[in-house]
Amino acid sequence: MKIILASKSPRRKELLDLLKLEYEIKVSNAEEVIEENLTIEEQAKKLAYIKAKTVFDETEGERAIIGADTMVIKDGKIYGKPKDEADALKILKELNGQKHKVITGIAILIQKENEYQEYIDYDITEVTLKNMSEEEMKNWIKTGQAMDKAGAYAIQGEFSVFIEKINGNYTTVVGLPIHKVYEIIKGLN
Amino acid sequence: MKIILASKSPRRKELLDLLKLEYEIKVSNAEEVIEENLTIEEQAKKLAYIKAKTVFDETEGERAIIGADTMVIKDGKIYGKPKDEADALKILKELNGQKHKVITGIAILIQKENEYQEYIDYDITEVTLKNMSEEEMKNWIKTGQAMDKAGAYAIQGEFSVFIEKINGNYTTVVGLPIHKVYEIIKGLN
Repeated sequence: MKIILASKSPRRKELLDLLKLEYEIKVSNAEEVIEENLTIEEQAKKLAYIKAKTVFDETEGERAIIGADTMVIKDGKIYGKPKDEADALKILKELNGQKHKVITGIAILIQKENEYQEYIDYDITEVTLKNMSEEEMKNWIKTGQAMDKAGAYAIQGEFSVFIEKINGNYTTVVGLPIHKVYEIIKGLN
Repeated sequence: MKIILASKSPRRKELLDLLKLEYEIKVSNAEEVIEENLTIEEQAKKLAYIKAKTVFDETEGERAIIGADTMVIKDGKIYGKPKDEADALKILKELNGQKHKVITGIAILIQKENEYQEYIDYDITEVTLKNMSEEEMKNWIKTGQAMDKAGAYAIQGEFSVFIEKINGNYTTVVGLPIHKVYEIIKGLN
């Protein structure tokens, strides 16, 4: 069974590598449109589904396509990737010293002979950030690592000194709930 | 200020590397003796202290010595490193599908001119493991990665597919609560 990760995120690749299986990466051009009338859980699942479905429609044969979408939420507000460095600082100031939630939607679309299966789910982890000084936030942004990440931070790497604690799955915060992906993928031949 | 990590653990080294500072590794020959009359928190702090103190006594000048000790606890029982593969399987079966706690004691001993400071603390994280089959446990043990780890598992890497969730700090489970180490170390000149 051919496995395709529909994401260009190096963090998701690193997590999927843990399963020790062969897979390809094929990124869709699906636009990430946030719909206002859906719950956050529905949005995360829908965005993951769109990413996987676009790649599914562009491929053939027996295959499993893995899509994922990660969002940071605090007080009902959704934080995506920062627009620029000033936006990254604004986001970090809003998240600073407090709890927020990280939700990752996953969609695995499987074509097996004539049987089609969809597995669509999400996982939520609560993250508590330490109190950072403005200098610490600016130094982090200067590393260039804030810009391609929802919420302008990464739980792994240099930023990890500012993570007080989490409640939930760690890989969900990184961007792919690998404990859930593993359960689906291990059943494929 | 010279910084010395008193541990040969590659996971602790990887975490300390995140602070982007120069340090040396010097391992003490302190024996890890578990004292029965101490609480688990006191044991973790004491073992971390002994590791740091042994190296402190073997070195001179302005220096900060970082020691750490990690233990896995379930139902009052302390799990260290497995004695052999059969013991690793026994440990994993006892932890399987349930919650346990990981405690890491840290001791940072600082000599600054004529001033001596000790910082001794611990951090606890609750870990929930998924239900593993015996085959999955045996395959994990076969990778050879179970043997040098308290509780016979690692939260990072291949085993991460079996981690349901955690409540607390991730790096505490890896073996060094880097958010706490950072706060002490950043104040040193």
